[in-house]
Amino acid sequence: MNDSDEVLRVEESPLRDAYSRAGVDIAAGNAAVARYRDVTAGWRHPSQRGAIGGFSGLFELPGDSKRLLVGSTDGVGTKILIAAKAHRYGSVGGDLVNHCVNDILVVNATPLFFLDYLAVGKLDPDVAGAVVAGVQGACRAHDCALLGGETAEMPGLYQPEHFDLAGTIVGIVDADFVPDATRVAPGDAIVGLPAVGLHTNGYSLARALVPESEWDADVSPGLTFLDALLAEHPSYYRAVRAIQEVAEVKSMAHITGGGLLENVPRTLPDTCKAVFEQARWSVPPLMAELVKRGNLGHDERYRTLNMGIGYTLIVPFMDVAKALAAVPQATVIGFVSPCPPGGEPVVVHPARV
Amino acid sequence: MNDSDEVLRVEESPLRDAYSRAGVDIAAGNAAVARYRDVTAGWRHPSQRGAIGGFSGLFELPGDSKRLLVGSTDGVGTKILIAAKAHRYGSVGGDLVNHCVNDILVVNATPLFFLDYLAVGKLDPDVAGAVVAGVQGACRAHDCALLGGETAEMPGLYQPEHFDLAGTIVGIVDADFVPDATRVAPGDAIVGLPAVGLHTNGYSLARALVPESEWDADVSPGLTFLDALLAEHPSYYRAVRAIQEVAEVKSMAHITGGGLLENVPRTLPDTCKAVFEQARWSVPPLMAELVKRGNLGHDERYRTLNMGIGYTLIVPFMDVAKALAAVPQATVIGFVSPCPPGGEPVVVHPARV
Repeated sequence: MNDSDEVLRVEESPLRDAYSRAGVDIAAGNAAVARYRDVTAGWRHPSQRGAIGGFSGLFELPGDSKRLLVGSTDGVGTKILIAAKAHRYGSVGGDLVNHCVNDILVVNATPLFFLDYLAVGKLDPDVAGAVVAGVQGACRAHDCALLGGETAEMPGLYQPEHFDLAGTIVGIVDADFVPDATRVAPGDAIVGLPAVGLHTNGYSLARALVPESEWDADVSPGLTFLDALLAEHPSYYRAVRAIQEVAEVKSMAHITGGGLLENVPRTLPDTCKAVFEQARWSVPPLMAELVKRGNLGHDERYRTLNMGIGYTLIVPFMDVAKALAAVPQATVIGFVSPCPPGGEPVVVHPARV
Repeated sequence: MNDSDEVLRVEESPLRDAYSRAGVDIAAGNAAVARYRDVTAGWRHPSQRGAIGGFSGLFELPGDSKRLLVGSTDGVGTKILIAAKAHRYGSVGGDLVNHCVNDILVVNATPLFFLDYLAVGKLDPDVAGAVVAGVQGACRAHDCALLGGETAEMPGLYQPEHFDLAGTIVGIVDADFVPDATRVAPGDAIVGLPAVGLHTNGYSLARALVPESEWDADVSPGLTFLDALLAEHPSYYRAVRAIQEVAEVKSMAHITGGGLLENVPRTLPDTCKAVFEQARWSVPPLMAELVKRGNLGHDERYRTLNMGIGYTLIVPFMDVAKALAAVPQATVIGFVSPCPPGGEPVVVHPARV
């Protein structure tokens, strides 16, 4: 996963102990990635380009080698099961689209169009309509066409009230505008954009640690567990564009499965490591509660959960003030330091409580 | 479904009585399509183009209005459940890719890249590797990049041995090369390319009519039910290109859910109907058996099953001989006739036995 050039990713494979406890098999994930590597090693289309961090795939536009199409497919994961049980279908479409938008934003791509895949056990037009309305709303917010989709009713594969939702985004970027992570250097600042919740990762764990009977209870004053669990995965598109207008952005990461520990290194040169200081940002109450209940160790928490950071941008130190001024929610959460050969590519200094 | 400009399709919604009996709800499918229409009516991206028959979505390439990107998302449907039970994973990838290739071929698009979504209950690297190998093989056969994908392990949503597979293809076509169905005229011939089995439609019905205990029995001499059920959805790409080299092709249809009755009208002008003569082609043994066991009426069989025709091309009568010479398996299966206002857009004359 960390060696960037992977065409196929296992979303939850970077998750270690905490996930094993929740029934997700890490060894199998890594083995599957190895199989995919074998499968795809035999042939690679000549128009395919390597993509920083593997958040998306890049494809040279036929007859126009200066422009790249960027594609990414994702699902919502088992957040779906919480939405289904709670009969709240309005936000999963936004979860999906925004996740995909952020994935291609890492290579600076502008969304063009989106296609969704909705699979249901028993087709309820109200539910399907609500899900697709969420997809369409999030597409429209990015001036991204909802170009098509597929709804499949599959009794026998899904329980009557269950459903799965996945989608594919296609964007475009000028080849010259793809961030060049090799320009990242010690002394650069890492700007973080806040997460609003688990986004679309960590739900197998969260479902194990927060039983349905507690969903209506408050995780923090005025916020129920259910609201916190279903908080919509935000798009960082506008924030990133605002920062790019005033600051150089050398590299970016979307903090999904694998957390800061596994996503940020995908966007660093081998000679650099990221040093985070957790005191610089606050951990959302839901995540603090999961850490406590699951007794998650340091690595587990920063690998299984985003811990409150949804997206990172690496900017030269001299551009930091401008970047922060452009987006009020942005904060400096760490710095780039030299990394000795074989050293840990990410260090998180925990907050002293 | 027939009114073409639908961005979102419910794969199995055109299926009526036979499908209701197999647990798929047609009324719900139609209601969902109506919801989608409401959802998407409010806003449509200006670069989006109407697509003949709605097999795919078309999007004008930014800065190059003469070229269109073409996208389509599909799943394999409950054929997946048969593959999973039989532990045969090699062909579902080809089913998926070839289905998508055929869907965008209807507007003459050349595949560029593909992304897959594999969701599993319990991740078995051998299974996942076999599935993705099939995807990659079918992509490579079309010089189509496997640009990315997502594998999600979701215990709780899928049973341990179950999985779902969906995918998205993106192709490209010159705007001038998109077939113009308004040129179809009475007297044109309809050339059919043979289906090798159910392809990716009709499996809810087939599973209801052919119990697992019979899978090893022969449906015809030397062909087991299981082999017939899992026969890989073929790509019609090369056959169509070969015909296009020697004949004018005015309009094409991929015969998926809805069969000849619902797919062919999507590619005809209102003034024309398609008249098929079933004696002109043979019905594969599996389909004949399903018709018999399910006691499927005329409309049911031609709507629920492809009945042996996987793809149709409408060519001027004078080009027929050249088209048939280019592809030995191609046959003339019907003709275009004038359609009075409100008339049935498809007539199938059954074979006299």
